[in-house]
Amino acid sequence: MFEEKKAEWLRIAESLKPALHRETVRPVSGMPDHALTENESIVLDFGTHFVGHFTLKLSAQGSHPDAPAWLAVKFCENARELNETLDGYTGWISKGWVQQEQAHIDVLPAAVSFPRRYAFRFVKIDVLALSSKYRLVIEEASAQAVTAADDRVPAPLTGDQRDIAIDRVALRTLRNCMQDFFEDGPKRDRRLWLGDLRLQALTNSVTYRHFDLVKRCLYLFAATADRDGRIAACLFTEPAVEADDTYMFDYSLFFIQTLSQYVQASGDRATGSDLLPLALRQLALAEAQFDPEAQLIRDSGRLGWCFVDWALPLNKQFCAQAIWIACAQAAYEMQADPALKEKIRLRREAARKHWYDPARRLFVSGAQRQVSWASQVWAVLSGIAEGADAAACLDAAAACPEAIPMVTPYMMHHYVEALCRVGRKAQARQVIRTYWGGMVDQGADTFWELYNPDNPDESPYGSPVVNSFCHAWSCTPAWFLRSGMLEENA
Amino acid sequence: MFEEKKAEWLRIAESLKPALHRETVRPVSGMPDHALTENESIVLDFGTHFVGHFTLKLSAQGSHPDAPAWLAVKFCENARELNETLDGYTGWISKGWVQQEQAHIDVLPAAVSFPRRYAFRFVKIDVLALSSKYRLVIEEASAQAVTAADDRVPAPLTGDQRDIAIDRVALRTLRNCMQDFFEDGPKRDRRLWLGDLRLQALTNSVTYRHFDLVKRCLYLFAATADRDGRIAACLFTEPAVEADDTYMFDYSLFFIQTLSQYVQASGDRATGSDLLPLALRQLALAEAQFDPEAQLIRDSGRLGWCFVDWALPLNKQFCAQAIWIACAQAAYEMQADPALKEKIRLRREAARKHWYDPARRLFVSGAQRQVSWASQVWAVLSGIAEGADAAACLDAAAACPEAIPMVTPYMMHHYVEALCRVGRKAQARQVIRTYWGGMVDQGADTFWELYNPDNPDESPYGSPVVNSFCHAWSCTPAWFLRSGMLEENA
Repeated sequence: MFEEKKAEWLRIAESLKPALHRETVRPVSGMPDHALTENESIVLDFGTHFVGHFTLKLSAQGSHPDAPAWLAVKFCENARELNETLDGYTGWISKGWVQQEQAHIDVLPAAVSFPRRYAFRFVKIDVLALSSKYRLVIEEASAQAVTAADDRVPAPLTGDQRDIAIDRVALRTLRNCMQDFFEDGPKRDRRLWLGDLRLQALTNSVTYRHFDLVKRCLYLFAATADRDGRIAACLFTEPAVEADDTYMFDYSLFFIQTLSQYVQASGDRATGSDLLPLALRQLALAEAQFDPEAQLIRDSGRLGWCFVDWALPLNKQFCAQAIWIACAQAAYEMQADPALKEKIRLRREAARKHWYDPARRLFVSGAQRQVSWASQVWAVLSGIAEGADAAACLDAAAACPEAIPMVTPYMMHHYVEALCRVGRKAQARQVIRTYWGGMVDQGADTFWELYNPDNPDESPYGSPVVNSFCHAWSCTPAWFLRSGMLEENA
Repeated sequence: MFEEKKAEWLRIAESLKPALHRETVRPVSGMPDHALTENESIVLDFGTHFVGHFTLKLSAQGSHPDAPAWLAVKFCENARELNETLDGYTGWISKGWVQQEQAHIDVLPAAVSFPRRYAFRFVKIDVLALSSKYRLVIEEASAQAVTAADDRVPAPLTGDQRDIAIDRVALRTLRNCMQDFFEDGPKRDRRLWLGDLRLQALTNSVTYRHFDLVKRCLYLFAATADRDGRIAACLFTEPAVEADDTYMFDYSLFFIQTLSQYVQASGDRATGSDLLPLALRQLALAEAQFDPEAQLIRDSGRLGWCFVDWALPLNKQFCAQAIWIACAQAAYEMQADPALKEKIRLRREAARKHWYDPARRLFVSGAQRQVSWASQVWAVLSGIAEGADAAACLDAAAACPEAIPMVTPYMMHHYVEALCRVGRKAQARQVIRTYWGGMVDQGADTFWELYNPDNPDESPYGSPVVNSFCHAWSCTPAWFLRSGMLEENA
C-alpha cells in the first residue's frame, strides 16, 4: 500500500533536511596548566552538554618526540560516567555505544580531530604512552557543537526558579537531540524513534517551533512504511533512509497522534491531508488484535512489542487497548467518521466492563489481572476512565504497593499528562519538580533516558554505562511548563 | 660552523625527496568465509612484509546495524607478535610504538582507512562489539604499500639457494625501510639514524642503487649539524627537518665513511667536495677525547654515548679508538693529508701498545681490560690488528668464553666484514648462512633489529613487543652476497 506515494514522500523528507547551527565551544575547566607525562589523566569540563566534533591541538615539550603519543579519549555525558569502565560488561545493548576512542599521534604539533560525533559534557584524556624524552602539551581543546535548533526562538520562561531550571534542562535535551532529524539520544541510539518523535514534536511546538523538522520526520516514517502500510518503530537515515525491522503496536499508532498534533501546532493542513490515509491505516492494521465480539485486545502475547514503558513485568493488554482508543480519538478529530466514533465508544465501554475492578477502583490487565500505574495512566488518557473514576484510579495505584511502578521519564510524561487531564494541576507540577527536578538536583545538564530516584544506577540494558543521558523522551517538562496546561483554569 | 651553508644543504636535501612507488596488496589468506559476530577474531596474512596504509571495506549482514561496530586492529610484522599484549609492559621504549588501533564504525557499509602508516605482514582484527542484530562482513581488506625502492633495479641473485633466500629477505628489509628517507625501521623508530644509513647506503649501492636517496640523507644530516658542526646520531623530518638531541661518538664519525662510500659508489664527486669539510670536522671534534701524549681515547666515561652494539656491559674505550681510526682512514682516502696519515699511524700504534694482550693474542678495553668480540672486530676493521694478529684475535675471542658477545645484526655485520678483511671468506659466508639464515629459518620476511639464536625473545628495550622486525641495519647480507667480497680471490 502507498507504494506509489513513497518516492515523493521521501523527496519531501529529504528536501527538509535541516541546516545545522555550528558553534565552537571550549572547556570551562580542566585544561592542564602543565605538560602531561605518560599515565597522566585529565578531565575537561565543557560546562554543559554538547553534541559535536572534538579537536585537540597538541604540542610537545622537551626533546623532539621520538615515539608516538598514544591517547585514550572518553566522552561522557555526565560525571558519573567518567569512572565507569567496560570491564566485565555483560549488558545486552552493544558496548560499541560507549564513546571512547584511542589515537596515536606520530607527529607533534598536531591538530587531532576525533572521527565521530560525540555527545558529552566531559572529555577524559588518558595519556597511555609518550616517551621519556617529551611531555605532551594540550594547547587547545575545542568542539564544534551542532544542532538543528535555533536557540533564539524559545522565549525565556518566567516564574518559579525551579521551574526555570527544569525548563532550561528540558530545552537543552531537546536541542541536542535535534540534528539531521529528531534523534532519540545523541549518544545512543542516534536514531528516529516514533515514540520519542511524538514527545519531541510536542515540546518543539512550544519551544524551537522547528516544524519543518517534524514534517521531515513524519515523511521519513511515511516513506518507509512496509508493503502493508505499517509504520516502523524507528528508522535509519544512513547510509540510506531505511526502516528498522522493529515494529511496535503502540509506536505505529502514535503516528496518528504525532501527525494530528503537528497539524494543529503548525497549521499545515496539506501535510495532514496527504498523510491521513496512512495514519488511518495504522488503526486498521491494529484491528487484527481485537476480538470483534468483545471489542477487546485479544491476547497480549500476540501483540508483538507494545512498549508502554521499560518495565519488564508490565502486562500491556489493557494499555494496548487504551492506546488504540487514544490514537483513534486523534484520528477522529482529524476526520470525523461516525463509524470510528462508535467503535471508540464500544471499546471504551468494553474495557471498562472487562478490566475495571470496582472494589479497588482501578483498572487491571491480563489474565493475572495485574495492577500497574501504566494502566491507570492510559485509562485516563484514553477516556476509558470517566468522571470521578479517572482521578480515583490514579489515587488507587498510589495506594496499591504491588502496583507495577513507572520506570522511565517517558512513562512519567504520560502520568503528568493524566494528572492534568483529571485536573490535578498542582500535583502534576509537583511531579515535575520532584522527578525531573531530582535529575537537576543531581547535576543533569540534559534529562536522562532513565531515572529512578531510588536507584540512580538502574538500567534496562544491564549496565548504566550504555544509558543515554540526553534523551528526547525526557524533554517534555518544557511542554508542560510552556503550554499552559499546568494552569489551574486551563 | 657551516651556518651559511645549511639553508642550501637543506634545499638540496628537500629537492631529492623521492617519489614513492605505490602498490595495492591484499591478504593471501585469513579472509573470513562468513560474517563475523561479536568477540570473533581473524588474522589476515599478506604473505610477506609490507609498509603502507590499510583499508577495510565492511558491510553488515542481518538487520540494519543498530549500534556501531567496534574493532581493534593490530598490525604485526611477524606471527609471534600476534599473541603479545601490552599487559604489564614495563619496557623503557614507548609502548606507543605497538601498532594497534581501535575504530568505531557508525555507518555500514563503509570503507575504513586506518589513519597511520603501518609495517606488517599480519593484521589481526578483533570484533570488540557489534549488536545482536547484525554480523560484520569483511568485503575487502587491502593495503596501499609504499616504498622509494624500485624493485626492477636489483638483478636476480644466482647460485646457492640458501644465499638466494637470505638475499631476498635482505632486499625486502632494505626496500621497506626506503621511504621518504632511509628509515631505521618502518615500525620503529621510523627515523633517519646515521648508523643505519651507513649500512643501508652500502647495500643500496649493489641493489636498488637509489643514490639520490643516499645523497638526500647525507644533506639532511649536514643541514642539521649543530653550531659546532657536530652531526647528530639521528634526525626527524616531521613536522620539520630537525636533529635529535642525541649525539653518539661513533655515529657522528660514520658520516665520513658514509660520504666516502657514497662518492665511490655513485661517482658524485661534487657532493664529496661539498661535504668533505663537514666530514673532517667530525674527526676534529673527536680530538677532545684523545690524550695527545698517549694518542689514546682518554676515558670511555667522557665519550657520551658510543653505540658499537646493544651490549650494556660492553666497554667501548677500545672500539671508540678503532672507529676513529677507521673513519680517519676513510677521510684520508678522500683527501690525502700527510698529517692525518701520521696521526692514524700513531694511534694504531698506541692502541696496539696499550690494549693488546700478547699472551692471549687479543685486544682488551678499559680499566678492567675487558675482552669482547667487538674489540677484536674493530681492531681488524681499523687496521690496528695487523697481519697474522688480525685473524688470530678473532679466533681468540671465539676461544674466550667470558668475551662479551655480539648481540645485534649490526655488530654481526662488522664481524662478517672483519672475517672478509682477514681472508676468512668461507667462514664469513657461513656466519651469514647461520645467523641471518637462522632468521629465515624462523620465517622472517625481513631481517630483525635483534636476533639472538639462543634467545629469540631478547630485547634491549625490556620487551620484544617493541622490537622492530624489519630493521635497516640487518640488511647487509645482500651487500656481502652481491659485492663480490665473499669470493676467495676478492
